[in-house]
Amino acid sequence: MAILFLSEADKTDEWAGALARELPDDEVLIGPEAGLARAADIDFAVVWYPPPGLCAKLPALRAVLSLGAGVDHALLDPDLPRHVPLVRLIDPALTEQMAEWVVMNVLRHHRLMPAYAEQQARAYWKRHDIPRASARRVGIMGLGELGRAAAKALAPFGFPLAAWVTKSRKWELGEIFAGPDSLGTFFAHSDIVVCLLPLTSATRGILSADAFARMPRGAAIINGARGGHVVAADLIAALDRGQISAATLDVFEREPLPADDPLWRHPRITITPHAAAITLAETAAREIASNIRRLRRGEAMVGIVSRDREY
Amino acid sequence: MAILFLSEADKTDEWAGALARELPDDEVLIGPEAGLARAADIDFAVVWYPPPGLCAKLPALRAVLSLGAGVDHALLDPDLPRHVPLVRLIDPALTEQMAEWVVMNVLRHHRLMPAYAEQQARAYWKRHDIPRASARRVGIMGLGELGRAAAKALAPFGFPLAAWVTKSRKWELGEIFAGPDSLGTFFAHSDIVVCLLPLTSATRGILSADAFARMPRGAAIINGARGGHVVAADLIAALDRGQISAATLDVFEREPLPADDPLWRHPRITITPHAAAITLAETAAREIASNIRRLRRGEAMVGIVSRDREY
Repeated sequence: MAILFLSEADKTDEWAGALARELPDDEVLIGPEAGLARAADIDFAVVWYPPPGLCAKLPALRAVLSLGAGVDHALLDPDLPRHVPLVRLIDPALTEQMAEWVVMNVLRHHRLMPAYAEQQARAYWKRHDIPRASARRVGIMGLGELGRAAAKALAPFGFPLAAWVTKSRKWELGEIFAGPDSLGTFFAHSDIVVCLLPLTSATRGILSADAFARMPRGAAIINGARGGHVVAADLIAALDRGQISAATLDVFEREPLPADDPLWRHPRITITPHAAAITLAETAAREIASNIRRLRRGEAMVGIVSRDREY
Repeated sequence: MAILFLSEADKTDEWAGALARELPDDEVLIGPEAGLARAADIDFAVVWYPPPGLCAKLPALRAVLSLGAGVDHALLDPDLPRHVPLVRLIDPALTEQMAEWVVMNVLRHHRLMPAYAEQQARAYWKRHDIPRASARRVGIMGLGELGRAAAKALAPFGFPLAAWVTKSRKWELGEIFAGPDSLGTFFAHSDIVVCLLPLTSATRGILSADAFARMPRGAAIINGARGGHVVAADLIAALDRGQISAATLDVFEREPLPADDPLWRHPRITITPHAAAITLAETAAREIASNIRRLRRGEAMVGIVSRDREY
């Protein structure tokens, strides 16, 4: 059978090669035209922002596999077949990168690096006292693969941890706040807020003016999830008022972030270009191939998305 | 008896108050004049850059206690009495801060934050592939309190660790390079070099043109020790050649760093104002008081400096 690779990201050759090495008995087809020409032969689609309607035209399709941990890009396709599973990527290399990025940024905000960067720009020497880690509360939004890994990496530093999740559960690393009704309390208890949520109709715009107003004055925002979680205009207003002290953003409504976007130039915003966790062809192809082999053996795939939850 | 507090740092009142609370039966005197007026009553001097010759004029002096982890500031006094112990500050709060600062900066350099900051300044969106932590070698110079704590905090991220020390020892967290002869090999095996050495006649200028030339091209430098460890002109030259990719410096030959110093303005240098580990009056006074009580009880103090090693 054949695997269809649908992504507008660069490095298509690297990806096709990695998938071909992992699945030597399959043909790897690249792009929508190759897919339509051989529609009947394709049993798996590996996708990042797939062209809407395309997967619905593949009669032998058995699963749609995301190239990233999030699947919001695939759910943008209104015709995405519901009779086959949609699968997120769970890749230890992605998880490791995200944990590094979160720890780095929690420490950057804890240690006032945005303020020191501003001071450096004007050659101004001034030290600031800061609370110890045990008095700096970190709130993590989302306890999926990435949120759990980030929390585990943060724990040794002694930050009091809290997490906001959809459904209540036991958690040994900190306090759990579950459901929409507890969101305001969660924000009020978080000096540094880390967003690692899936982007769904329930979480879009969750970091809004109302959210920022509920946080302690001077709270910091770290968004490693999706641009759609943050209302950018509200964030800029909250930064300009001093309600939020600084923010680090890796993801944006439009990517690449347009050069004239004010987020680039705000002195209290640090930007990384969707680089918190970069899918590496080699390790990701291994995980994707493992899932394909699982299904072909009649086993359950890992990371199947609930269409109702949207993650 | 009386404790003499000698420091030109700010917050003298906070310090005097913290020492007085910890040692309620002692009088806390502040500054050289108060010290000379009551010289016969002073049994301990708590110092940061003590005025040269002053401690030699205190006949009842039993120990000189440093306000910081380093004692180079006290050894600048050629008349510092050799018949009483000189004691470094070992304070869990200092150690915790330094471990945070080192992890933050190792992650910043590992994750190419200096390059992303340059990109942000020109609104340029470009992602860079990076090696996994397991392929990014971190070399720590010095395995005292601070070096050991930094290594322990780095270990969970999976960086291969090495340490350069004076005398060989067993170390469970990585490879040991001991003595001057192994320094070049240590540098050649370090993608990110973290300096946490004491400043002594043997370590002054250790991060020089020769050191940078031995490191892998593109290595990063993190200095949390003393400004005297780095030959600043050599560092700037190595950065401009690309031999060193970026540096983060917390300490400088002159502090505050003069506003016209080129280090402030180099695009690949991040500066923090001797803020990696700020001595907190409350926790430090507790440790200093414990040492004073130890000596008065006839026990050994913790952190006694060897005058021959200079640390």
